[in-house]
Amino acid sequence: MIIILKDNPEEKQLENLIAWLKSMDLDIHFSQGENTTILGLIGDTSAVDIDLINALDIVDTVKRVQEPYKNVNRKFHPQDTIVDVAGVKIGGGNFQIIAGPCSVESRDQVCQIAKDVKAAGANLYRGGAFKPRTSPYAFQGMRSEGINLLLEAKKESGLPIVTEVMDLSHLPLFEDVDVIQVGARNMQNFELLKELGHLNKPILLKRGLSSTLQELLMSAEYIMAGGNENVILCERGIRTFETATRNTLDLAAVPLLKTMTHLPIVVDPSHATGIAHLVKPMAMAAAAAGADGLMIEVHNDPPHALCDGAQSLTPEAFTDVVKAVNAILPHAYKG
Amino acid sequence: MIIILKDNPEEKQLENLIAWLKSMDLDIHFSQGENTTILGLIGDTSAVDIDLINALDIVDTVKRVQEPYKNVNRKFHPQDTIVDVAGVKIGGGNFQIIAGPCSVESRDQVCQIAKDVKAAGANLYRGGAFKPRTSPYAFQGMRSEGINLLLEAKKESGLPIVTEVMDLSHLPLFEDVDVIQVGARNMQNFELLKELGHLNKPILLKRGLSSTLQELLMSAEYIMAGGNENVILCERGIRTFETATRNTLDLAAVPLLKTMTHLPIVVDPSHATGIAHLVKPMAMAAAAAGADGLMIEVHNDPPHALCDGAQSLTPEAFTDVVKAVNAILPHAYKG
Amino acid sequence: MIIILKDNPEEKQLENLIAWLKSMDLDIHFSQGENTTILGLIGDTSAVDIDLINALDIVDTVKRVQEPYKNVNRKFHPQDTIVDVAGVKIGGGNFQIIAGPCSVESRDQVCQIAKDVKAAGANLYRGGAFKPRTSPYAFQGMRSEGINLLLEAKKESGLPIVTEVMDLSHLPLFEDVDVIQVGARNMQNFELLKELGHLNKPILLKRGLSSTLQELLMSAEYIMAGGNENVILCERGIRTFETATRNTLDLAAVPLLKTMTHLPIVVDPSHATGIAHLVKPMAMAAAAAGADGLMIEVHNDPPHALCDGAQSLTPEAFTDVVKAVNAILPHAYKG
Amino acid sequence: MIIILKDNPEEKQLENLIAWLKSMDLDIHFSQGENTTILGLIGDTSAVDIDLINALDIVDTVKRVQEPYKNVNRKFHPQDTIVDVAGVKIGGGNFQIIAGPCSVESRDQVCQIAKDVKAAGANLYRGGAFKPRTSPYAFQGMRSEGINLLLEAKKESGLPIVTEVMDLSHLPLFEDVDVIQVGARNMQNFELLKELGHLNKPILLKRGLSSTLQELLMSAEYIMAGGNENVILCERGIRTFETATRNTLDLAAVPLLKTMTHLPIVVDPSHATGIAHLVKPMAMAAAAAGADGLMIEVHNDPPHALCDGAQSLTPEAFTDVVKAVNAILPHAYKG
Repeated sequence: MIIILKDNPEEKQLENLIAWLKSMDLDIHFSQGENTTILGLIGDTSAVDIDLINALDIVDTVKRVQEPYKNVNRKFHPQDTIVDVAGVKIGGGNFQIIAGPCSVESRDQVCQIAKDVKAAGANLYRGGAFKPRTSPYAFQGMRSEGINLLLEAKKESGLPIVTEVMDLSHLPLFEDVDVIQVGARNMQNFELLKELGHLNKPILLKRGLSSTLQELLMSAEYIMAGGNENVILCERGIRTFETATRNTLDLAAVPLLKTMTHLPIVVDPSHATGIAHLVKPMAMAAAAAGADGLMIEVHNDPPHALCDGAQSLTPEAFTDVVKAVNAILPHAYKG
Repeated sequence: MIIILKDNPEEKQLENLIAWLKSMDLDIHFSQGENTTILGLIGDTSAVDIDLINALDIVDTVKRVQEPYKNVNRKFHPQDTIVDVAGVKIGGGNFQIIAGPCSVESRDQVCQIAKDVKAAGANLYRGGAFKPRTSPYAFQGMRSEGINLLLEAKKESGLPIVTEVMDLSHLPLFEDVDVIQVGARNMQNFELLKELGHLNKPILLKRGLSSTLQELLMSAEYIMAGGNENVILCERGIRTFETATRNTLDLAAVPLLKTMTHLPIVVDPSHATGIAHLVKPMAMAAAAAGADGLMIEVHNDPPHALCDGAQSLTPEAFTDVVKAVNAILPHAYKG
Repeated sequence: MIIILKDNPEEKQLENLIAWLKSMDLDIHFSQGENTTILGLIGDTSAVDIDLINALDIVDTVKRVQEPYKNVNRKFHPQDTIVDVAGVKIGGGNFQIIAGPCSVESRDQVCQIAKDVKAAGANLYRGGAFKPRTSPYAFQGMRSEGINLLLEAKKESGLPIVTEVMDLSHLPLFEDVDVIQVGARNMQNFELLKELGHLNKPILLKRGLSSTLQELLMSAEYIMAGGNENVILCERGIRTFETATRNTLDLAAVPLLKTMTHLPIVVDPSHATGIAHLVKPMAMAAAAAGADGLMIEVHNDPPHALCDGAQSLTPEAFTDVVKAVNAILPHAYKG
Repeated sequence: MIIILKDNPEEKQLENLIAWLKSMDLDIHFSQGENTTILGLIGDTSAVDIDLINALDIVDTVKRVQEPYKNVNRKFHPQDTIVDVAGVKIGGGNFQIIAGPCSVESRDQVCQIAKDVKAAGANLYRGGAFKPRTSPYAFQGMRSEGINLLLEAKKESGLPIVTEVMDLSHLPLFEDVDVIQVGARNMQNFELLKELGHLNKPILLKRGLSSTLQELLMSAEYIMAGGNENVILCERGIRTFETATRNTLDLAAVPLLKTMTHLPIVVDPSHATGIAHLVKPMAMAAAAAGADGLMIEVHNDPPHALCDGAQSLTPEAFTDVVKAVNAILPHAYKG
């Protein structure tokens, strides 16, 4: 961390600052220019509060040199992490497609789509039991019953399941779930992240609507700091001024995250665009850019889906996407 | 709700759509132009899923005419709601200042600042016991012990207290808290909002970093739908491309929200700007624009605050802000 | 266009509105519901000012059904436009790579890079003679001399050239330029667009930093309305809250624009990301998503480039990008 | 400027960098930590290209300590600049209201509104002769004829006039105009800014839709670098994800700009919100926050205005705004 002081810092305040920094076991490299005094902090600065130092009268600016994350940092863990989901590997060259309906609606629906997406080439099955909905009057998901139906679909299809948790009090219901998904709105639900850190189960962490990549990594750091190393990141679009698509898919995040972290990164083109006919080209683009997987909404009857129908594919359309993605994969960016 | 169909809609699909709409107890007003067919839905459309209709092959666009919120809607509740916090009224012409430290650090600190802000003219006392922090390595708040210290400060100062809840499992600790704050990151924590709807206690709901005003109102609707009518909205800045301030304070939200809802609206210039010297002018501007109150961070020793020091005022500076705001108030916008 | 009136519109005002709409040669389809009155405007509404109607007391909301653009609209021109640049075709299945230095610096530099990028597989040569720079103290380009050097590079390499115009008063200097580029900051320089509409020369129109896709198409419409049909669109990243990349590349814009317009669309991964190592994966992703071409910065000595060095590739790195893109192309999204 | 090098920088490259920096007349303060080497550049770094240095292999990060602007910088010019417009002073405690119609439509209209706004208390008259319109089919302004009508209105009312230039080739028509306005879309039309720098006439420079405050100041620096010191800045809203208002008025920009620059700052609540009933509260808030003036759209017949009717006030409503603002002014923030 580099602290640039204002011109002619008050002597006493400077002493206080230095004493305080030393109390945090930091060495200080002092460098005095004509007008500018610079303090270089040497040691582990990940716990130093940059805003606090910025608030001091004598400080002009503060700049981190080290990243504020450790466990997720590729610098300290150069190999790709490979997350093993009931034998299905993601990351480190293993590309997987997670597919399924936005929300679980019935036993027939959930089992039928599981078979359909498996036949089309999906390796993981997703479905929403708990649904975060903007309106209190919209369908809120089948909740615990939905999880049971997903587990039945797993038994029938053999596909491991991915489903979203909305509150930490529901975690006991997720015992047999293979991957717990943290939705965009919960990316900074820190109490939930801490709990997930104590599980020994893969977590799929979606980027928040207005979260920076660094914030996404800090949230993954919360989970890893608790001891759970099985984190899969998911880019699913950010909120911008453009309203032609539901969100703006930030695909450059994929290769950039790969330089920052060793964790696998999947892309959700369905939520990112909100438009069914954009799922295919964006899935292909994500594969080309080096993503470790995709998360795609598939519904046997999109117009009657109880939520997010606008972005769902039929099993036929999904089959076509899988083929197109598989043709791209051998030529994809490897980093 | 208005549904505009594509040219020459397929007959069978149109029949299905109409049957489905009628099954939701909606009347349909059918209007056929040369190239354009329009369906006007008459009845309560707040539960109709606009995305779902948009997904239909035969539909070009869908547009809501009615707002998707009811309880918070000023149309159905023209009088301003006045929230009573232990005798301190907010809204309907009652302007209140909520002040206090970002986080509770010690008994001495929290009691001293309470006295200071009361002397300066604050009517409600805020302090963070549970702190949402981006980094798992940053100070996470004194938690339950912090709430106890706030309650002591309340006893000593007589000021009702406002403090943030981070997870619904902590709610039992908030029994004696006067106002429960929902932070920006939890604005769409729908499980938490539902629980708060069953309490009989004022809720201060902060706007999310990238939440639209309609989404803010929908979150308030979650609370009111549960029966709790004591909701105070808080504008605290949104995330934009501008990095000169921490967030961009959207002050036009205040008079605009007042036309949309009857709920009181307070403004938090401290978090919105993240810069101490901008708190005063933005507090004055918020008062001028017709806000029902302010939420301001005050610290007896900003440079040593354990979080968010950069935006905290000293008690002296806060006293100056209160005076400036009080000079504006008689001339403020009344709607 | 659909106009939704407020409840119980004032009779006289409604008559005035209808008379005014009829004066614009529009037919009106009148539809009266219980609480809602809807006017459907039939005819060419592209010249109707939607904001003006919105301002009327009796109007609740106005919604366009037709797009406000005609010449660029794929509805009225279903075939892909193929722009012919001195024999090099872009669009309609013809994929081209435009490459070259950010700014022209010397005869040697500009001729050497032209040979290098041609050898690597580029079909068009770009270089900045007039440079838009945020600071008045930064290098502003070699200007007319730079254009002369580009023309020499064209003669030596045989590659047609693309270069940016900054002001319409400079247009006479561009007579021998093959493609005139309109930069992001000039996307809504309407006086310039009108002039370009009178030329018979391909125009490469870059999307503005905060321009919607509809605004991009409206700017293309300005050029086409003047009679010039040779417009190439360019997605080059938009400004968002994320600062890890210079801009956020909106790749979903490519397949979405293809449904809106018949014009070719190229992608500039260099400016979109501002980071050299992201150019390759984003070029590959753009090809996969169905772009008609790429625009890539190449410099023989990036660290000494007079501008935008951070995002430039060496000729060797560029050669590698071309190979990777060529491997993707046979499998790319075709729409 | 602070340059932080990567660990173990390559010796030869470091020598090259140092030689190059010295060639720009910069002194270098060298500071070697255990893992981190820092170069402090001493001297005038305003012409140093930060992106270029960032591109070097051996460089980790670069950080400016000095602002990249000089003439507009309050550090070098502590007193407020007062711009004198034909005897009407703006800045340094002088608050002025600029009012008038969005676009000039007829002699009668433009002269009538001039009298009306003067009677209400406006001191400067604005009106659009050249109109930047998103659509080529929308009314483009009366152009040179419109300027003549404005000059007649000036003669009749005695109010100095403010009108927008859209292209530098039109500048000769602006000889008798009192203040030349640069619209948001032209804020980075650098060729135009350079020309305006050679005039001896006040320039009102509007912030671009997605321009940072630093970019706004750099554009003002373009004008001042040419010798023209009469620059008035204008905050008029920025583009964000929120669509409830046309733009998001960034009012914190006012007090923040005042610490960065000595130039006067006016606020345009009409364009910022796009909603007539928000003009009054935002005008009041801007006054409270310390703005040096306001720019407000007034129309004698808003529903028939040829553009931007939705945000225009009637003369009566404008009179009410002026009174409300005048009540705030004695209590406004003074810095």
